[in-house]
Amino acid sequence: MAVEYYDFGPYKIHHSSVFHTTDLSFAFVNLRPAVPGHVVVCPKREAKRVADLTAEENIDLWTIAQKLGRQLESYHEASSLTFCIQDGPQAGQSVPHVHIHLLPRKSGDYENNDDIYDDINEKEKELKRKLEVDIERKDRSLEEMAQEADEYRKFVF
Amino acid sequence: MAVEYYDFGPYKIHHSSVFHTTDLSFAFVNLRPAVPGHVVVCPKREAKRVADLTAEENIDLWTIAQKLGRQLESYHEASSLTFCIQDGPQAGQSVPHVHIHLLPRKSGDYENNDDIYDDINEKEKELKRKLEVDIERKDRSLEEMAQEADEYRKFVF
Repeated sequence: MAVEYYDFGPYKIHHSSVFHTTDLSFAFVNLRPAVPGHVVVCPKREAKRVADLTAEENIDLWTIAQKLGRQLESYHEASSLTFCIQDGPQAGQSVPHVHIHLLPRKSGDYENNDDIYDDINEKEKELKRKLEVDIERKDRSLEEMAQEADEYRKFVF
Repeated sequence: MAVEYYDFGPYKIHHSSVFHTTDLSFAFVNLRPAVPGHVVVCPKREAKRVADLTAEENIDLWTIAQKLGRQLESYHEASSLTFCIQDGPQAGQSVPHVHIHLLPRKSGDYENNDDIYDDINEKEKELKRKLEVDIERKDRSLEEMAQEADEYRKFVF
């Protein structure tokens, strides 16, 4: 019944990293989060661009993002959130599958508040690289990620 | 019937800058766009944080953002889009009224693709400053903004 992997563009996300799903969407923890609680919300269908989303997919994604944002901000004792879609290569999208970056923010998490965007981009490039060549991963372990996802499952409904 | 100004946090946006409205939302052109077509999509109700949006407001905002993104990308002959919400002060939000930054992106629009975020933040601070002290505005004129909004009204439906 449960799937083992979720498709994220050409990559596979292990189900243990996925902490929330609906009929149309899934949310997973990051290999290398830019801040604690930096998660990704995705349509299950591999839509490349926001314009490719059906109305239902678009609505489902943002309904989840709103809910998860509130829950993760509270869990991580943060005070703000960054929501961001890099929609297309010229916007920094490196995985061609629509995804919302959702980041709990707090005072002083970045010296320059906006450096976080460089980091999102760096992480995305790293994710791509790491998933492409699966040798010597110095990222978080699958276990560590599963543990975080488990934690989130306790309060995400 | 038409309103003269739309509330954007403590500020007033002249109707001539507003190029699209629904029952719940409005979209307006920027005082100092970071790139051509950099617009803002807002709930009419002054909700401070994404968590404060009703389900209907949240859905309406993103339904419009998806549509406007497609139309503005095409109009500006861009190839990508940046969608971003700075939700709360620690995420760089300087106007306490939920708003989506929507930016058509194209190759080479920023030397470093992600510098755009510094710029969004800078523009937001400028907007705040300029609207607070309405002296010696060296920003775009209301006429120029109205002209852009007029242009958009031709293809936004």
